[in-house]
Amino acid sequence: MDIIVLKPKTKKEEINRIAKKLKRWGLTANLSKGTERTIIGVIGDTSKITEDEENAIRSMVGVEDVMRILKPYKLASRDFRSKDTTISIMGHTLGSKKIHVIAGPCAVENKTILINIGKKVREAGASFIRGGAFKPRTSPYSFQGLGEEGLKYLAHVKKQTGLPVVTELMDPRDIDVVVKYADIIQIGARNMQNFRLLLEVGMCKKPVLLKRGLSATIKEWLMAAEYIMSKGNQNVILCERGIRTFETATRNTLDLSSVPVLKNLTHLPIFVDPSHGVGKMELVAPMAKAAVAVGTDGLLIEVHTNPEEALSDGEQSLRPHDFRKLMKELKPIAAAVGREI
Amino acid sequence: MDIIVLKPKTKKEEINRIAKKLKRWGLTANLSKGTERTIIGVIGDTSKITEDEENAIRSMVGVEDVMRILKPYKLASRDFRSKDTTISIMGHTLGSKKIHVIAGPCAVENKTILINIGKKVREAGASFIRGGAFKPRTSPYSFQGLGEEGLKYLAHVKKQTGLPVVTELMDPRDIDVVVKYADIIQIGARNMQNFRLLLEVGMCKKPVLLKRGLSATIKEWLMAAEYIMSKGNQNVILCERGIRTFETATRNTLDLSSVPVLKNLTHLPIFVDPSHGVGKMELVAPMAKAAVAVGTDGLLIEVHTNPEEALSDGEQSLRPHDFRKLMKELKPIAAAVGREI
Amino acid sequence: MDIIVLKPKTKKEEINRIAKKLKRWGLTANLSKGTERTIIGVIGDTSKITEDEENAIRSMVGVEDVMRILKPYKLASRDFRSKDTTISIMGHTLGSKKIHVIAGPCAVENKTILINIGKKVREAGASFIRGGAFKPRTSPYSFQGLGEEGLKYLAHVKKQTGLPVVTELMDPRDIDVVVKYADIIQIGARNMQNFRLLLEVGMCKKPVLLKRGLSATIKEWLMAAEYIMSKGNQNVILCERGIRTFETATRNTLDLSSVPVLKNLTHLPIFVDPSHGVGKMELVAPMAKAAVAVGTDGLLIEVHTNPEEALSDGEQSLRPHDFRKLMKELKPIAAAVGREI
Amino acid sequence: MDIIVLKPKTKKEEINRIAKKLKRWGLTANLSKGTERTIIGVIGDTSKITEDEENAIRSMVGVEDVMRILKPYKLASRDFRSKDTTISIMGHTLGSKKIHVIAGPCAVENKTILINIGKKVREAGASFIRGGAFKPRTSPYSFQGLGEEGLKYLAHVKKQTGLPVVTELMDPRDIDVVVKYADIIQIGARNMQNFRLLLEVGMCKKPVLLKRGLSATIKEWLMAAEYIMSKGNQNVILCERGIRTFETATRNTLDLSSVPVLKNLTHLPIFVDPSHGVGKMELVAPMAKAAVAVGTDGLLIEVHTNPEEALSDGEQSLRPHDFRKLMKELKPIAAAVGREI
Repeated sequence: MDIIVLKPKTKKEEINRIAKKLKRWGLTANLSKGTERTIIGVIGDTSKITEDEENAIRSMVGVEDVMRILKPYKLASRDFRSKDTTISIMGHTLGSKKIHVIAGPCAVENKTILINIGKKVREAGASFIRGGAFKPRTSPYSFQGLGEEGLKYLAHVKKQTGLPVVTELMDPRDIDVVVKYADIIQIGARNMQNFRLLLEVGMCKKPVLLKRGLSATIKEWLMAAEYIMSKGNQNVILCERGIRTFETATRNTLDLSSVPVLKNLTHLPIFVDPSHGVGKMELVAPMAKAAVAVGTDGLLIEVHTNPEEALSDGEQSLRPHDFRKLMKELKPIAAAVGREI
Repeated sequence: MDIIVLKPKTKKEEINRIAKKLKRWGLTANLSKGTERTIIGVIGDTSKITEDEENAIRSMVGVEDVMRILKPYKLASRDFRSKDTTISIMGHTLGSKKIHVIAGPCAVENKTILINIGKKVREAGASFIRGGAFKPRTSPYSFQGLGEEGLKYLAHVKKQTGLPVVTELMDPRDIDVVVKYADIIQIGARNMQNFRLLLEVGMCKKPVLLKRGLSATIKEWLMAAEYIMSKGNQNVILCERGIRTFETATRNTLDLSSVPVLKNLTHLPIFVDPSHGVGKMELVAPMAKAAVAVGTDGLLIEVHTNPEEALSDGEQSLRPHDFRKLMKELKPIAAAVGREI
Repeated sequence: MDIIVLKPKTKKEEINRIAKKLKRWGLTANLSKGTERTIIGVIGDTSKITEDEENAIRSMVGVEDVMRILKPYKLASRDFRSKDTTISIMGHTLGSKKIHVIAGPCAVENKTILINIGKKVREAGASFIRGGAFKPRTSPYSFQGLGEEGLKYLAHVKKQTGLPVVTELMDPRDIDVVVKYADIIQIGARNMQNFRLLLEVGMCKKPVLLKRGLSATIKEWLMAAEYIMSKGNQNVILCERGIRTFETATRNTLDLSSVPVLKNLTHLPIFVDPSHGVGKMELVAPMAKAAVAVGTDGLLIEVHTNPEEALSDGEQSLRPHDFRKLMKELKPIAAAVGREI
Repeated sequence: MDIIVLKPKTKKEEINRIAKKLKRWGLTANLSKGTERTIIGVIGDTSKITEDEENAIRSMVGVEDVMRILKPYKLASRDFRSKDTTISIMGHTLGSKKIHVIAGPCAVENKTILINIGKKVREAGASFIRGGAFKPRTSPYSFQGLGEEGLKYLAHVKKQTGLPVVTELMDPRDIDVVVKYADIIQIGARNMQNFRLLLEVGMCKKPVLLKRGLSATIKEWLMAAEYIMSKGNQNVILCERGIRTFETATRNTLDLSSVPVLKNLTHLPIFVDPSHGVGKMELVAPMAKAAVAVGTDGLLIEVHTNPEEALSDGEQSLRPHDFRKLMKELKPIAAAVGREI
């Protein structure tokens, strides 16, 4: 059931043209005259009406507005699947009572440093190691990542620590090599609407961590998840990482309200990345605590043994010592909201 | 010390004019030639340079940019006063270990309902009753508040329950009547840059709860606090209540990162209003928990015995039962961050 | 006619409660069951439903969403009055074929300078002199205006040049003195939702130039106009002056699309203020040209004989020479869109 | 020359560590003590400092802020090349006195319709035909484009009309086929920071039309152009198409001030796409006029013979008749700003 609002004084033949168009799509127009506006209630399965068709109606003479009642995503929707999705990876169940932490450096830089970080974050209680081998950088003159060499270092850390690997895919041409090494494939914020990349990870079987785009609404974010799911891969994890606003005191504005909003709309697990969300190391711990209190299923935290020498995002990385302290401090908060970490 | 960046190929006489202007203000220009840009370091007490004077320099021929190093606010700054400000009201100390909760309806509507709400929120652990007698409404056709009659109802509830009163001032002409009844004067988000109102509350002695404007940066918010403090009233409480972004799933985007950012920049107590921040009752509880975890000094929560009949903001008000449940759930989170509630 | 969308599996008694509430308001509920959602069409004069009542319905059990079909403003709406409003002041008709230009300094600083500016802008073709005697400044340490003294200078310029006066009102307590000197009362962006100020100017007879708030939607802006008009003053001029976005290259983002959008929605005259919109003098001329091309009814441009010494907003003020040049360059553009200047 | 602002009470050994780090990069630290802050002026060629290195300094103990004086882009900068870049394609010179218009449907749907549109827009004065064969759509259930078949239709229209072809590349794997048919390769807003795609078009010789991202600052947009140019392709055309703001009355907020801002910062040609910028057909003509008045080098306008049946973006497409009318109306405005169309 959708609603078409007509302009005042719309002519009968204009209404007939709309009704005819709907009929061609197997739908029925149900006219209601109000005191100031006439509306058409569209009867039938309107979930089949695409955005394009909606816009086509919107462009017809006599139409003032079209109001959609159904959500444009299905597979990602809680209407479609009411039970929470859980994703199991090497003994870790994402979306369960336990809050999982993905930790590691922004970029993979060096094998020794990475192993060191891996050991430290495992000891502190992280379940996954993260690190970018392919890096999306705003400047062509910045460090672009080590490529497959970096993925090999991650594999080495996995062997040494038992931590499964989370790493980013930027280019559909790298899918095979990333799938070979990653346990979770990360899609970065700047690629949230790189639709070809979404289709590509939709066709593989690895879980996908889908970061929210800088200016993506929650609806658009769920549509991006729908892209992946529509190709067969139901293992999508959403990751809030801050949106762009007018405020410049923080790198982005971490929208923690997206967590309970998403819990209502979708069955998919939801993570929060406070490191990118705020961009300053001293703000990471309080925001991680808030994320646990608000109901996140997991955290993604940047950790580096030497932030001053990090090739990427040093200013927002925790030192292992601070990460360990944070992990301890999160425990009673998790318990307070009926979770564990 | 401020920095003036010159355009490439600025002429000597243009530089001299800038130096002369600075000299007139008792400052010295210190020229540094780099390979691509020449800059002027301004030596002396640049904290006296107003925004106007900064802009005057910016408009001079040859000037590309002016970079300020000092913050434009002083009294509100932690540089000025490193110790946390605490504010004592009828035995409650705001800005202390204890997290205080201000609860009540959006608008004062009716004496019986208000007393009922007051009793319920006090039992549940609130320290203050709130309620608007003067209401800023986006529509002239909406309920505008009961005026002094409403303030009298609040006074009555205070007598009955012992809860001090928080209520909004919208118009400098109402200051006397509001001061008479309020224990904390609220300045609403839409009036955060109503500078005459700020000066007015700066000249009275009542503590002021200053809500963040919908599109106010943290710097502008602190400048608004500075307005109040510059007139002598140091008892300012900042209240985060969400900013305007492109996201429409929530009424506003509650920027919880403002709490730790402010804790670094200012000594003033910081409250969070999750009710206006999200605008939907089912999101209030998780965001209140996150606010406690992130380090807030207090909460402002809308409670109504019958949200369906509320004359204002019913869709974001908790029922007393849900408020009581929330207060209990906040306790272990407060404890986890070294606070009590 | 409004639409209430019900949650899936809403119970019959919940629907009955909604229907009963509507009945109490003199409206009828018309139930339509779709394949996935049931909706209630509200029959009757729904224009009487206030925002509060809308929210009350939104908070009822079983309600997923409420969709309004009618606009919340009436007097300001083109549905209410299809003919363009024109406003006549000392022989100038705002909202007519002629594009009017309001020019002058940001703040009134000095009588001699002001007279000089007044003469120059009149020669160049401006119809009104502007200048602030009461200034809303983000810092309490910035120049706050000369007060009534400044208004007297404006009156003096009016006498000397014949230019009617546009000046800002910030405080309802200043209304009498401002009305005495102003031909158009300006309500600044930061006061667009200072509802008491709006009611005050609504009760006087002087035309009001209502600037768009920094984060105001077009709907909220028209609601602010409605406030004024609801008190009897129909002479409201809307003035686009830029909105706050994430972009920092300009002071604000001048939203020129608001002009044609407003031309569809309202009968009120629309002005554009490129000076505040961009905040940099070299951008004022191209944006003024664009504003004329897009269909503005007038411009508000800051002009100062010596921007480097201006006490406010020097960096965005044109020198008289540049203003004269701009006025000439605007003529063929105005002609190209069927206007004159 | 860059500036490092130190925190109050920074220790000598902390300053020494910073100085040592700078020395390793071949730079010298020049300490200036002010009354309230000490700053380090960095002497030497700081243009080599990457964003990563800047952030590494930002994360050092004792550092409060880092201020960059030089722009992070070079090849795209007017400092690097002061003369306007012009791009010649089949006799059309982009970036010259003549304003060029790219017109056509959003998506290529059907050969006959496309030829018809091509003929109509050529007659009306367009210089290029546009049409998407690969379409980035927010829903996986929307029409995704005809692929190479669509490119062949464009080639056919080019043959019949002589109009060179502008079409979008979404996936680096499609570069060969797109290069084969396109005269200008379009990079869409959602791919503005798809860095692999940028590198790919940087390595080919075809001119690139780079649309501004929905939440991209002008600086980030120029950095995206720098990506392309850093690989050897200097023929980049920037295209403003609206940014995401809180306003929902238009699809996006077309930021026309970006045109004069960019004219100062870069030598590259700048186009404006009013169709996507506003998203409603009745707003396209006024915004196109404003774009010409503000100084654009070209326009990108969606035209469709039957918007009601368009498979994509029908609601913002002009009918050929309206497009022809608009082209005529643009002529005197172009003349008024010293251009032709």
